[in-house]
Amino acid sequence: MLKIAIIGLGPIGIAAARAVQRDEGFQLAGLVDSDPAKLGKRLVELDPHADADDVAVVGDIDQLPVTPDVAIVSTTSYFDRIAPTLRQLMRHKVHVVSSCEEMAWPWYGHPHLADVINGEANSAGVTLVGTGVNPGFVMDLLPVAMSSMLTRVERVTVTRVVDALTRRMPLQRKIGSTMSVDDFKKLAKQKQIGHMGLPESVVMLAQGLGRHPMRSEIRITLDPVIADRAIESLVGVVEPGQVCGMRNRGSYSAAGIDIELDLTMALAASEPRDEIEVVGEKTIRTIIPGSTPGDTATVAALVNVARALPSAPRGLRTMLDLPLCGCRSS
Amino acid sequence: MLKIAIIGLGPIGIAAARAVQRDEGFQLAGLVDSDPAKLGKRLVELDPHADADDVAVVGDIDQLPVTPDVAIVSTTSYFDRIAPTLRQLMRHKVHVVSSCEEMAWPWYGHPHLADVINGEANSAGVTLVGTGVNPGFVMDLLPVAMSSMLTRVERVTVTRVVDALTRRMPLQRKIGSTMSVDDFKKLAKQKQIGHMGLPESVVMLAQGLGRHPMRSEIRITLDPVIADRAIESLVGVVEPGQVCGMRNRGSYSAAGIDIELDLTMALAASEPRDEIEVVGEKTIRTIIPGSTPGDTATVAALVNVARALPSAPRGLRTMLDLPLCGCRSS
Repeated sequence: MLKIAIIGLGPIGIAAARAVQRDEGFQLAGLVDSDPAKLGKRLVELDPHADADDVAVVGDIDQLPVTPDVAIVSTTSYFDRIAPTLRQLMRHKVHVVSSCEEMAWPWYGHPHLADVINGEANSAGVTLVGTGVNPGFVMDLLPVAMSSMLTRVERVTVTRVVDALTRRMPLQRKIGSTMSVDDFKKLAKQKQIGHMGLPESVVMLAQGLGRHPMRSEIRITLDPVIADRAIESLVGVVEPGQVCGMRNRGSYSAAGIDIELDLTMALAASEPRDEIEVVGEKTIRTIIPGSTPGDTATVAALVNVARALPSAPRGLRTMLDLPLCGCRSS
Repeated sequence: MLKIAIIGLGPIGIAAARAVQRDEGFQLAGLVDSDPAKLGKRLVELDPHADADDVAVVGDIDQLPVTPDVAIVSTTSYFDRIAPTLRQLMRHKVHVVSSCEEMAWPWYGHPHLADVINGEANSAGVTLVGTGVNPGFVMDLLPVAMSSMLTRVERVTVTRVVDALTRRMPLQRKIGSTMSVDDFKKLAKQKQIGHMGLPESVVMLAQGLGRHPMRSEIRITLDPVIADRAIESLVGVVEPGQVCGMRNRGSYSAAGIDIELDLTMALAASEPRDEIEVVGEKTIRTIIPGSTPGDTATVAALVNVARALPSAPRGLRTMLDLPLCGCRSS
């Protein structure tokens, strides 16, 4: 049985802890959160859907009752902010899988730090990987998988349209619902709004197609989606002319290849889906109607990768380095 | 540059040789075929679409002008028949990727021989893998990839419908077009007709979901598809009541999971597509309209895996052991 600790008990961490509880191949070996209100709590006190369990929340990794084999870390979207946690876990020789979006391709945002952490992970003999549904699957790993059916690729376009009405309140707020267009643009300028991990997806996909983009070759745009009618949402009624979502695009066009990632998350977005088109000697189109479910899929990615880490190659790695981590739950 | 030899110059081998010629990361290092009519021929003499090249066909692996890094072998569908070729290539320390359908999961049909060959490959320090579009991707690897977005899987169904009118003549013949139903059933009983590799796909998918099926748990059926109207094909007109294709089903139902693979290859088949449904805490449906192109995709799989073999884990392996082999052509 693989001993798993959960670091960071937000919605993703709690759902991951529950999935670990229910898998006979795992032992939930520890819970860590810095929030004093959660200290000493059992999982079932944080989430009534969890099973009863003896493990109580501690405030620091060094206080874990047993040393886990793998830590699932969901504390931050930023690689430089997760680095101290990675280092603490490496001192205990613990493998890490994280939903940290920048960690899906840490060399994009933090090339030097990523190299240093990679060296430290190799010395410690552990594997560190960032993953999730997006980044980590829909807009990067899955298009790479589809490209394996072509001998040459000229163009990849990935369109992901999420109907935010089907998602939880924090996501409805995060995409700007009820904001004015001006406020959205202000926040966008300050990088206070927008999907995390899009440039990382562009780079991962390009690398999976044998390209090595420079940072300056990645283009990211962010636009508000504007309501053309009143929409009731969990954060209130969006009036016509107000923001009801966002459209985030990322692209790379060099070395004989065009990559276009187009992510729309909006209230009542029409035709929600994931759609991948890979164009080479043939065109292969792949559609996931309704789009891959968001939060549950990220939890699944974390748990399925956690299971694979002990036999994975060592170092700071990406999903491109690992064999497919299917759902081998028991 | 990776030196590649092509063993077996049927349509797949020739197309693979052309793809190798056109990729700057590869050097076409040799061509082997046992057909005396092909001996001494250049690729362009076998296929006018090929580029001019100095490499001439030899009759035996031991006569190759240089030792390749990787051999692409398309000579047989049967693992016991490819074994002597694998052994000859292992003596030269050559990695192998093959379209041999049984080799996609050689432990299904030949568990003892697979173990022995695996030992020999480890001793020789080479990697041997079977792959293609099916088996190797649509009905096994891709559903495993989709399962990574779920924490538990109860059921996987894969439906592949190929309109054989869009495919080359040998395929139209292979599926039984113009046969009587009685003749089809006779051939089916003698295992002279039907898709190769379906049980291998069932086992690969089950293994990718953490199950370890026994041979007796895999169920395979084969039925004729019967024309309800006259259909003109490359092998002649199919009259109503005659066979216009085949439907091959494979299933596994044990250990809390149901797997159903349903492959129809028929003239004028309606709704041609690949469709994958993975059911767990959510249902994820994936559709490839028109279905993944057949022959070109198998060639792509061979070439893309060939590129990855030098850094792959050693031994007799399957696609589940390798990181994704995207199209990294240059």
